[in-house]
Amino acid sequence: MSAKTITVVGGGPVGALLAISLARHGYEVGVYEGRPDSRQTDIYQGRSINIALSDRGWTSLAKIGISDKAREQAIPMYRRAIHAVDGELTSLPYGVDDDAIWSVSRSGINEHLLDVADTEPSITTHFEHRLVDIDFNTATTTFRHPSGPETVVEADYAFGADGASSKVRRLAHNLPRFSYSQTYMPQSYIELNIPANADGSHKLEKNALHIWPRKHFMLIALPNTDGTFTCTLFLDYEGEPSFASLQERTDVEAFFETSFPDAMDYLEHPVEVFLEKTASPLFLVQVFPWSFNRKVALIGDAAHAIVPFYGQGMNCGFEDCAELHSLIAEYDHDWDRIFPAYESARKPNGDAIAELSKRNFVEMSDLSGDSMFQLRKMIEAKFSQRFPALWTPLYSMVTFSPEVPYSEALRVGDEQNTIMEKIMAIPDIEKDWDEQYVMDRLHDLAEAIFGEGQ
Amino acid sequence: MSAKTITVVGGGPVGALLAISLARHGYEVGVYEGRPDSRQTDIYQGRSINIALSDRGWTSLAKIGISDKAREQAIPMYRRAIHAVDGELTSLPYGVDDDAIWSVSRSGINEHLLDVADTEPSITTHFEHRLVDIDFNTATTTFRHPSGPETVVEADYAFGADGASSKVRRLAHNLPRFSYSQTYMPQSYIELNIPANADGSHKLEKNALHIWPRKHFMLIALPNTDGTFTCTLFLDYEGEPSFASLQERTDVEAFFETSFPDAMDYLEHPVEVFLEKTASPLFLVQVFPWSFNRKVALIGDAAHAIVPFYGQGMNCGFEDCAELHSLIAEYDHDWDRIFPAYESARKPNGDAIAELSKRNFVEMSDLSGDSMFQLRKMIEAKFSQRFPALWTPLYSMVTFSPEVPYSEALRVGDEQNTIMEKIMAIPDIEKDWDEQYVMDRLHDLAEAIFGEGQ
Repeated sequence: MSAKTITVVGGGPVGALLAISLARHGYEVGVYEGRPDSRQTDIYQGRSINIALSDRGWTSLAKIGISDKAREQAIPMYRRAIHAVDGELTSLPYGVDDDAIWSVSRSGINEHLLDVADTEPSITTHFEHRLVDIDFNTATTTFRHPSGPETVVEADYAFGADGASSKVRRLAHNLPRFSYSQTYMPQSYIELNIPANADGSHKLEKNALHIWPRKHFMLIALPNTDGTFTCTLFLDYEGEPSFASLQERTDVEAFFETSFPDAMDYLEHPVEVFLEKTASPLFLVQVFPWSFNRKVALIGDAAHAIVPFYGQGMNCGFEDCAELHSLIAEYDHDWDRIFPAYESARKPNGDAIAELSKRNFVEMSDLSGDSMFQLRKMIEAKFSQRFPALWTPLYSMVTFSPEVPYSEALRVGDEQNTIMEKIMAIPDIEKDWDEQYVMDRLHDLAEAIFGEGQ
Repeated sequence: MSAKTITVVGGGPVGALLAISLARHGYEVGVYEGRPDSRQTDIYQGRSINIALSDRGWTSLAKIGISDKAREQAIPMYRRAIHAVDGELTSLPYGVDDDAIWSVSRSGINEHLLDVADTEPSITTHFEHRLVDIDFNTATTTFRHPSGPETVVEADYAFGADGASSKVRRLAHNLPRFSYSQTYMPQSYIELNIPANADGSHKLEKNALHIWPRKHFMLIALPNTDGTFTCTLFLDYEGEPSFASLQERTDVEAFFETSFPDAMDYLEHPVEVFLEKTASPLFLVQVFPWSFNRKVALIGDAAHAIVPFYGQGMNCGFEDCAELHSLIAEYDHDWDRIFPAYESARKPNGDAIAELSKRNFVEMSDLSGDSMFQLRKMIEAKFSQRFPALWTPLYSMVTFSPEVPYSEALRVGDEQNTIMEKIMAIPDIEKDWDEQYVMDRLHDLAEAIFGEGQ
C-alpha cells in the first residue's frame, strides 16, 4: 500500500512543523505557500518581525524531534524592563531563576523549519502557490501560480495552516453549521526600530523585554541578534490619543516626547515612521468546528488567531502540531478518530489563550501604573516560593508550565484572582503585606481551594 | 433641491416598514427584494410561518404611523399552556390582566406593510431582484433579475434589511475592522402542523402558546386564524435524542409517542414530516459596526439575527426602524449624525436581546420540569403585584414594557436574579414562601438595589 498523501496549505512556521510531523509519521506531504521562498528572496523587505517563543514552543518542537539548534539564534529575556515616563527603570523578572521567554526572528525560525522539511524526502514544498479553492469533502485543493495554469491537487487529507487570514477558513464560512467570529481590538499597531550601537551592541539591556506602559497605549521592544530592537507601538485606532487623532507632525512629535521621552534617544525616526506607515489592526478569530468531514482541518492561527499580548501565538500553534503528532500515534493513523480528538483537545485551549491574551493588554500596559497591582504580584511571588504546590502564578503557568493546558491555567488563574481580591481587601494591606498573618490568610484560602483532597 | 434617494435591500417586514418610514420623511425609496411578490405568487408553498408580535412591535408600528389594522389578523395569546408528559395541562399567564403576545402570520404582516408601501408615491418596489454587489463608499448597488441584465442603482444611502443571511452583511466581511460572529445553537428545528376541526375551530385552546417542554427539547404551537396551529419542534442536531440519532421510522414513532403522547391526537403526520424534512439550523449573528462610511447601514435580522426563544426577532427589527424614524427628525436629516446615533442606540439592545433569547431556551424547555423555578416565578409575581415600582418580572420588561430598552431589561434581570437566588436559598422556602418574612426579606433586598435614591 502506498503512503497516504496530505496537503498542507501554508508554509509558515506552523505549516512547516506540521509537514515535518506528518512526514515522520510516514505521509507524503505537499506544502503550498502563497509567498515566495524567503530563503531565496528578501520578502520581508528589511522588516525583522520577531516574536516570543517560550517553553510550550520549545517542548512542542522537541516532541516532533526538532533539535535545539533554533535556540542558538534566540535571545533569552529574563525580565520585563519597565520604562516610566520620568525615565525610571524597573525590572520585573518573568519567573524564578533562569526562567525566560525567547526573542526569535519569525523568518529565522520559519527558514530553519523549512530547511528541516527539505531534509525529509517525503515533503515537497511549492512556493508562490495561492489557494483558490478547497473541496471539503475530498480534500482536493486548487492553487494559482503567477506563471502557469491552476494546479489541482488531490490528497487523502488537507490542513489549513495558512495563518490569521486563512483562506481555507474563509472558504469554510459557507459550510453548514460553521460558527465563526472575527473581533477587532480597539488598538492597532506600527513597528518601529532601535538601531544597534556602532560596535553592534544593544543600546538597551539585551536580555529583557522593554515596556513603556502608558495605560491605554504602550510601546514594547524585543532584542534582535544584530544589536537592534524591534519595537511595537500599540495605540487606539480612534479616540484621544489615537492613530486617527495624531495626523499632524507637531502632534505626533509632542505625543512621542511626552509619552516616551527616554526612548526618543534611541528610536529611529519614530515620527516619520508614524506618519508614513498605516497602522495594522489587531483581531481575534474563533471558529468551530476545526475539522470538516474527517478530511480537512485548521491548525495554528488559521484556527485561532489571537492578539500578541501574551507572546503565545506561535507557541499555541506549535502545541497544536505536537498534540496532533501524539494523536496520530495514539490512534494508529485512524483519522476518523484523530480529527475529532485533535479538535476536542485543542479548541478549549485555543479559546483559553485567546481570552488570556486579550486580558493581558491591560496587565502589560498598566504594569507600572498601579502600585496595588505590583504589590499583589509581590505577595503572589512570595507565597508561590513558599508553597509551590499550592500556587504557580498565572504568568508562569501560561509561559513556563507546558504540562498545564491553557484552559486549566485560565481556570486556576480565575480562582487565584478571587482569592487575591480577598487578600488585597485586607485593611492596611499596603503596610502589612509582609506580615505573617497575611501569608496565613492566603494559605488558608489557597488550601481550601487547591489543597490536597479538594 | 430634489429629494435624496435611499436603496433598501430586502422587502421583508423590516425592509417594508423602513421604506415607509423613509418615504414619510421625504426620501425617494427603492426597495429591492430577491423573492417574488408573495401577494401575486404563493411563494410560501402552503407554509404558514407565524411569529410573535408584542408591545415593542405594535408601539414601533404606531410610531411610524402604521394603523392598528394588522392587529385584526393577530391572535392574542394570554398564557402559556404547558403540556406535561402525562397530558396534564398547566396555565401560566404571560403577564397581568390582558397582557398578551400576538400570533401573527409573517406573510400577512409583510403583505400588509407592502400594501401600505404601495400607497406611498415615493416608494418603488422591485421583486426578484437579488443583490450582486454593493459599494460601501457610494451606496451604489447592483442587482440581478431572472430576465434581463444586471441593474446598477445609485442612491445617496443604502440599507441592508435583507435578513438573517444578509448578503449586504456578508459583503461587509471584507471591510477593514469589521467584527462579526455567527454562532450555531446545538438545536435545530422542523415545523409541524395541527389541522383545524371540521367546523374551522381550533383543536387546542386558541388564545395560548402551547409548550411541550422536555428539558433538552421542546415542541411549541402557535394559533393561526384558520383554526390550525403551526408547531415547531426544537431538538438537538446531534447527540441522544437528536435529528441525527432519529433516522428510523420506529425510533421516530417511539420518540413522539413517549415525548408528546397527547399531541399525537392532533399533529398531522408528525413522523412522516420528521423523516422527510431537513431540520433547519438556529444561529445568532452579531456584528459591529452596523454602518459604513455614513453611507450604508444594516437593520433588523441583517444586523442581529437572534434565536426565536423570546419571540422578539421582528419586534427588535421594528424597534430599529422606530429608533431611526425618531433620529431622522431629531438630527434633521443629517446622516453624518444619524448613522452613528442609530448604531450606538441599537447595538447594545441587539446584543441584549440576543443574550436574553439564547437564555430563554432553558426557561421555556424547562418550564414545567422544575418546581423550584415555578415557585420562584410565583414569588416574583406576588412581589411585583404588591410593589410594582420595585419589581417588574424580566419577561414583562422584555415583552410588555417597550419603554425599557432590552439592555436595561437584561441588566435589571441579572440583579433580580442575584436577589432571587438569596430568597430561594432561604431554608424551608418551599414551605414558607407565602409567609410575610419572605416578602419582607425580598423587599429589603430589592429596596437596597432598586429603591429611590439608589
